[in-house]
Amino acid sequence: MIALDEGLDQRDRWLPPGAGEVPLGRVADRGWHALSDLLFPVLVLKEAALAHNLDVMARFCRASGVSLAPHGKTTMSPQLIARQLAAGAWGVTAASPAQARLFRDFGVERIVIANQVVDPRGLAWLAGEPGGVWCLVDSERAVELMDEGLAGRGPVAVLVEMGLAGGRTGCRSLEDGGRVAAAVRRSRSLRLAGVECFEGVVSEPGERVDGVLRDVRSLTESLGREGAFEGVDEVLVTAGGSLLFDRVVHHLAGGWDLGRPVRVVLRSGCYLTHDHGSYERLGPFGGRLPDWEPLRQALEVWGLVHSRPEPDLAIVGFGKRDVSYDMGLPRPLTVRGRDGAARPASGMEVFRLNDQHAYLRVPADDPLAVGDAVGCGLAHPCTVFDKWRSIPVVDEDYRVLSAVRTYF
Amino acid sequence: MIALDEGLDQRDRWLPPGAGEVPLGRVADRGWHALSDLLFPVLVLKEAALAHNLDVMARFCRASGVSLAPHGKTTMSPQLIARQLAAGAWGVTAASPAQARLFRDFGVERIVIANQVVDPRGLAWLAGEPGGVWCLVDSERAVELMDEGLAGRGPVAVLVEMGLAGGRTGCRSLEDGGRVAAAVRRSRSLRLAGVECFEGVVSEPGERVDGVLRDVRSLTESLGREGAFEGVDEVLVTAGGSLLFDRVVHHLAGGWDLGRPVRVVLRSGCYLTHDHGSYERLGPFGGRLPDWEPLRQALEVWGLVHSRPEPDLAIVGFGKRDVSYDMGLPRPLTVRGRDGAARPASGMEVFRLNDQHAYLRVPADDPLAVGDAVGCGLAHPCTVFDKWRSIPVVDEDYRVLSAVRTYF
Repeated sequence: MIALDEGLDQRDRWLPPGAGEVPLGRVADRGWHALSDLLFPVLVLKEAALAHNLDVMARFCRASGVSLAPHGKTTMSPQLIARQLAAGAWGVTAASPAQARLFRDFGVERIVIANQVVDPRGLAWLAGEPGGVWCLVDSERAVELMDEGLAGRGPVAVLVEMGLAGGRTGCRSLEDGGRVAAAVRRSRSLRLAGVECFEGVVSEPGERVDGVLRDVRSLTESLGREGAFEGVDEVLVTAGGSLLFDRVVHHLAGGWDLGRPVRVVLRSGCYLTHDHGSYERLGPFGGRLPDWEPLRQALEVWGLVHSRPEPDLAIVGFGKRDVSYDMGLPRPLTVRGRDGAARPASGMEVFRLNDQHAYLRVPADDPLAVGDAVGCGLAHPCTVFDKWRSIPVVDEDYRVLSAVRTYF
Repeated sequence: MIALDEGLDQRDRWLPPGAGEVPLGRVADRGWHALSDLLFPVLVLKEAALAHNLDVMARFCRASGVSLAPHGKTTMSPQLIARQLAAGAWGVTAASPAQARLFRDFGVERIVIANQVVDPRGLAWLAGEPGGVWCLVDSERAVELMDEGLAGRGPVAVLVEMGLAGGRTGCRSLEDGGRVAAAVRRSRSLRLAGVECFEGVVSEPGERVDGVLRDVRSLTESLGREGAFEGVDEVLVTAGGSLLFDRVVHHLAGGWDLGRPVRVVLRSGCYLTHDHGSYERLGPFGGRLPDWEPLRQALEVWGLVHSRPEPDLAIVGFGKRDVSYDMGLPRPLTVRGRDGAARPASGMEVFRLNDQHAYLRVPADDPLAVGDAVGCGLAHPCTVFDKWRSIPVVDEDYRVLSAVRTYF
């Protein structure tokens, strides 16, 4: 077991000089202001947005009759995952046995490994777990390798994965899905526990998404008719990234008649922090689900202007080691002068990142000065979290309320 | 002080299940084979390549009459930085006060912060250090903010930064450089210690690079004539990323006549691991410096084939959370079957990465199978290291010899 309350020290790069060691539970006592007392660049999590997003997603799942196993890969943070569970999440999703192992240490009972597990050492770990872990299988070869690796231990619960043509993993036809399910049923060490897909390889609703979700339903139903889930208390049907979970609910929530309970599980991870990128632009809340309040952005990075070497250029002190850049560059939101006065970052744009520097295009007549702080929204939370060992959580006035750890 | 020999445990995702806690000094005792005993995906550092690169770079610096302060941001690893120092590095480069603070904990005596420091907390840290830290300044405003933040403590050694038009930070003209130097000399808390540039904002030799390096020389010489380095034991002149350090040597090594010693310092970081990307394609050794042996690639990632859902597509179990993708995608090198037999990954190409998956284009008639391991070379070491808390070091047979920690 690892200590989940590992305190902060100067390995945590934002910690103020002279802070010494700070137990995680005593962060608030220090009375830090994130933009005055910490070392720049500073990444913050905004408490009000986190609380709002946890609440909206929990209410949406309850109202839709589905369960939530948020993808833990997004944050890899025991403190944030604990809040997701406290808000009613049924389990947590992992991308690998290594992540699942860590989540078990975080105290998570139910883990969906949203991946094939053909790693002999990963199977060794799975074999030693008392249950409550599901993983995927999309080929007869994988069934064979799992069975070989488990060598009669288990049984390990698996879900047949359906996929989209031209997409990622997953069976490309119902026939393939049926064949893989049959192989699972013949195996010594696996138990067929349900059906899965990841519809999020496309980002907008349409026939490709609807098609794979219909396949998931159809394969589950035909397997149910064949008695393929014999001995399973509850059939698991799971899908859902953070962009199209409304379509998952539309196709998969309710209406099941398998002669045994069916649990439909969404696996969204990015709802927790939302973003200033694809999730803001394309996510369901507020847009395709107009009756639901939009999510709020919880992540912001702040850097200082180091240099303004040309009239329309400022160089800001954060870069690729601090923020995401795979699905959009940071979006300037706010400028905060040395006196603490804030104003909108109007007309400013981050147009390039180096490892430790952001290139900011600035209107030539803007008074932005060396030493001013620039706050930016971020696209794609996953690739923000993996750059920080710990992140301070702040209130609306940027007072530090707590901190969370990550384990990448 | 932090413990530099922090042992491994299951927070280190590649550690085999059941390994328990492993002191860093006892890793070799376990007798692990990186491709049979660790959890996938596996990132490895190849010892023979590290040793070769350390040696080549050390010999090159000695032969060129320059010193090396490798950029520590690349690895952020106390074990690797210790080896660079043991191989003769004069100091270490940092990107920020937070990195410099950590390097001091690593035991580094001389640190060049290759950045402006206008962060009040960063200045507070600088003010408390006993010396041996240099940082940059490229505007009178920055001089003012530093002087204000240091409030008479110090003096802190600063280098005037020269830059390229359309580039990053740095003064755009000798006049500007002279004005900034004069402001430093008027300040209470700063001491003018030399001149700097980062030529690596362009990647190929040519007039832009030569121009800024000539400016560095010319500004240093004119400041020397003015007596601007009065009281400085040794004038520091520094430049050099990992692509154009041969041009830095050409322009800056030797020929100084300032009436006091001049130390020319290269700051390359990526020579240590080299890469399968820009550094391989454009770096000086073996190419523009044909008398020097090329560097060798020390980083490789290995993932298992999870799925081969279409004839020309394989999905491999590593992704954006494991490897660099900002300056090129992973390059497939070797396929290793379940029986341990290796063959070249001929005709294979990684054409997309998701967070945890690589999309591999495969010749349709290639026998690559689910469960096979694919080893890839990586571009841009910096954005590989920042994704791992620790990395195993292996011999040519992939036996694990040791492990290094990183602190991002």
